[in-house]
Amino acid sequence: MATDFLSSAAAIVGNESFLTGDTTAPYCADKRGRYTGSALAVVFPADTQQVAEIVRLCAANLIAIVPQGGNTSLCGGSVPLSEGRQIVLNLSRMKRIRAVDPVNYSMTVEAGCTLADARAAAEQHNRLFPLELTAILDYCEIGGNLSTNAGGNGVLRYGNARDLVLGLEVVLPDGRIWNGLRGLRKDNSGYDLKHLFIGAEGTLGIITAAVLKLFPRPQSGATAIVAITDPAIAVRLLAHVRATCGDTLSAFEIVSRSSLDIVLRHVPGTAEPFAKRHEYYLLIQSSDVLPRPLDGALRNAIQSFGAGIQEFAVTADADAAEEWWKLRKNISDAQKREGISIKHDISVPVSRIAEFIARADAELHAAYPGVRIVAFGHMGDGNIHYNASMPDAAQNKILIAQQEGTVNRLVYEVVRELGGSISAEHGLGQLKRETIREYKEPLELELMRGIKQVFDPHGLMNPGKVL
Amino acid sequence: MATDFLSSAAAIVGNESFLTGDTTAPYCADKRGRYTGSALAVVFPADTQQVAEIVRLCAANLIAIVPQGGNTSLCGGSVPLSEGRQIVLNLSRMKRIRAVDPVNYSMTVEAGCTLADARAAAEQHNRLFPLELTAILDYCEIGGNLSTNAGGNGVLRYGNARDLVLGLEVVLPDGRIWNGLRGLRKDNSGYDLKHLFIGAEGTLGIITAAVLKLFPRPQSGATAIVAITDPAIAVRLLAHVRATCGDTLSAFEIVSRSSLDIVLRHVPGTAEPFAKRHEYYLLIQSSDVLPRPLDGALRNAIQSFGAGIQEFAVTADADAAEEWWKLRKNISDAQKREGISIKHDISVPVSRIAEFIARADAELHAAYPGVRIVAFGHMGDGNIHYNASMPDAAQNKILIAQQEGTVNRLVYEVVRELGGSISAEHGLGQLKRETIREYKEPLELELMRGIKQVFDPHGLMNPGKVL
Repeated sequence: MATDFLSSAAAIVGNESFLTGDTTAPYCADKRGRYTGSALAVVFPADTQQVAEIVRLCAANLIAIVPQGGNTSLCGGSVPLSEGRQIVLNLSRMKRIRAVDPVNYSMTVEAGCTLADARAAAEQHNRLFPLELTAILDYCEIGGNLSTNAGGNGVLRYGNARDLVLGLEVVLPDGRIWNGLRGLRKDNSGYDLKHLFIGAEGTLGIITAAVLKLFPRPQSGATAIVAITDPAIAVRLLAHVRATCGDTLSAFEIVSRSSLDIVLRHVPGTAEPFAKRHEYYLLIQSSDVLPRPLDGALRNAIQSFGAGIQEFAVTADADAAEEWWKLRKNISDAQKREGISIKHDISVPVSRIAEFIARADAELHAAYPGVRIVAFGHMGDGNIHYNASMPDAAQNKILIAQQEGTVNRLVYEVVRELGGSISAEHGLGQLKRETIREYKEPLELELMRGIKQVFDPHGLMNPGKVL
Repeated sequence: MATDFLSSAAAIVGNESFLTGDTTAPYCADKRGRYTGSALAVVFPADTQQVAEIVRLCAANLIAIVPQGGNTSLCGGSVPLSEGRQIVLNLSRMKRIRAVDPVNYSMTVEAGCTLADARAAAEQHNRLFPLELTAILDYCEIGGNLSTNAGGNGVLRYGNARDLVLGLEVVLPDGRIWNGLRGLRKDNSGYDLKHLFIGAEGTLGIITAAVLKLFPRPQSGATAIVAITDPAIAVRLLAHVRATCGDTLSAFEIVSRSSLDIVLRHVPGTAEPFAKRHEYYLLIQSSDVLPRPLDGALRNAIQSFGAGIQEFAVTADADAAEEWWKLRKNISDAQKREGISIKHDISVPVSRIAEFIARADAELHAAYPGVRIVAFGHMGDGNIHYNASMPDAAQNKILIAQQEGTVNRLVYEVVRELGGSISAEHGLGQLKRETIREYKEPLELELMRGIKQVFDPHGLMNPGKVL
């Protein structure tokens, strides 16, 4: 039966788009090597029809399916488990940009289109597709972006992936194709199904195409780097800048001293932004469709803020701005080179960020004297990446090996008390599949299981993820 | 059993919040008197706990529930059917504004809070809650706004109700309370359940509270009124203004000659905007958080557009602008006084609006020579209100009595061919419950029924609506 299944699958996609045995390995492990699984085969369908046929074949044979795009998940969401019978269904061949409608500010792309290509296509038509995951732009794909409701740097101004979708095409777990590819901004003709698939991490169906929302392209920008002593000042500055620069505010990121140190240590071509070393840095971006200077307003906004700002600089020059942005964009890479840390991707209401950092810092310093905390991220939308490690390599090994759960619990308790989420951006995947049960209402999990039962009663779609 | 049920219900909410018999009549009919039903009782719970108890009582007795807010539905969605055993559960006592968090740009309100009160509360904290249904601001309530995914004039800039919600509190059909009241902009910790209830028109559960998204308050504005000959020019002008005025563009509405005539005829204090009579008028609004003049940019944008604009005027004066806006805001009221018409609330991609109007006009003029078409609405987001009647009263009576279905079908076929929706804003309610089956994929309806089955297996929540 297995042989019949495999040869049928190969017949659908073609032998050159069908892998089995050792060649499946790169598609069965995540990029950090933390999750390794196995698959009967990896298939690369050419179009939605082939996806549907593969899914029908799998459903008939009760073989599970792991949908995969760029395989950039940080929670093991896009690789197979090590047990069970499954295939990996990789969407990367489906790169077509099916249509661009600049007047409607929309664009229809297939799930395998990379984020970089989607953004480039929009730019060619003088539009902006604002989803921005700078580190993985060339590798991550739209299908994955939508399945994980990706965030990135642009959420403050443009929203999450969820806010950038007008319609979807989805292959359901029984192989039927739901064509919901509408380019409408207003459509109240029944339940909104697309929002179930967005953020479902491939557990309810396979997104094969989407109608994306486009925006006018910014033609001017200004960037500020601001040194402060305390995140509490950042929260107030954010409100101040929003009130004074309004809708031009497009990013507001925080970088801790420890984050900057790691970047300076590991990333060539980076330097301290000021002569003095400071505790926290903010990167503020404003942009506008109109080609008018924005640096004046940004400078005035910061100058008028009052006490709390140690020093700052503002530029309208894109290259100068990029020197500062490098300090923020390279933190994840720098952390990889520094070594392993216990990572948290949390969100709290913006008004409680300073409280989160202060309390979580206190908890961890008390429990693990000398612990180093690297905190950085999307201050403007409440999402902080909060990572802990011991500076001494031997101590760190022990911390990682024995204390990860305890560290998580200390941090997540603060998050819970402040009404936050233990998974702001990255999703649950395999990583947080069990942990989430301690932090989510049982009723909510029950409703999720009910929905899963409607779409995927046999549990074949990305098993072991999310639920 | 009925007596036991009624006395139990009265005991939960209190006798003064319990109606039965004749006193239920105003709550069992819609404002236009097109839908009249009957209910065993109308209850007015004071809080979420009472809502839950009522729902549990109804579930135990298999009595259906019609959730009701301001009862402003245009499709019979908020009144009971004339058959069956049901109660009306009116949320209007639950008006509390539970919390405002200006730093987090969020606000938690109960479902019975009127849209006007919600907006006022935001304004008190120097924030904007941008949902704007001008005609019914003081009557419609947040619960209904969210259950119908209300649109309004602000969608172009701020999105639909769906885009303005961070979290919900919902009483499920079995009486359990789902507390999803989170004020987070990023939360990828499972399926997004709130989007099921938003736009579900009360058929999956009762929204009892919501965390709403707030925005900086605009401090400057400019308005333009533009006379054109053809909607096709409007579509191009919209793209031009978006590209040149960018994010300050906050409304873009179209008014046909026929719409304006009806307003001038029935609404005191209105006048032709120009000396010459024109075929179509556009109302364009730009606004900004910064107190800077916007009329110059708007004037330049229109002046630089090129051929196609008959004449135009721009003002930064709010009172002058209101004179123009009256011409748009009063169309629905004026239509009521003019008489009955066959109404359509449709959307197509913005790029196809001109085509829709041209083709639908042609179809109707061919089938009904002399028909008058009143077309107006939210050009900027593709939603046109498109209403047909005969100028002669006797002929109109015949048209309404005999031709409504045929007129609908002619219009909806054009909508279907252009990839649009037959219900852009108002929802399905009772009105389009059957019609939608001709215009929606059977698969989509099947998935909707599957979801309905998960939440409301006994079909007690607002029966006869949507599905």
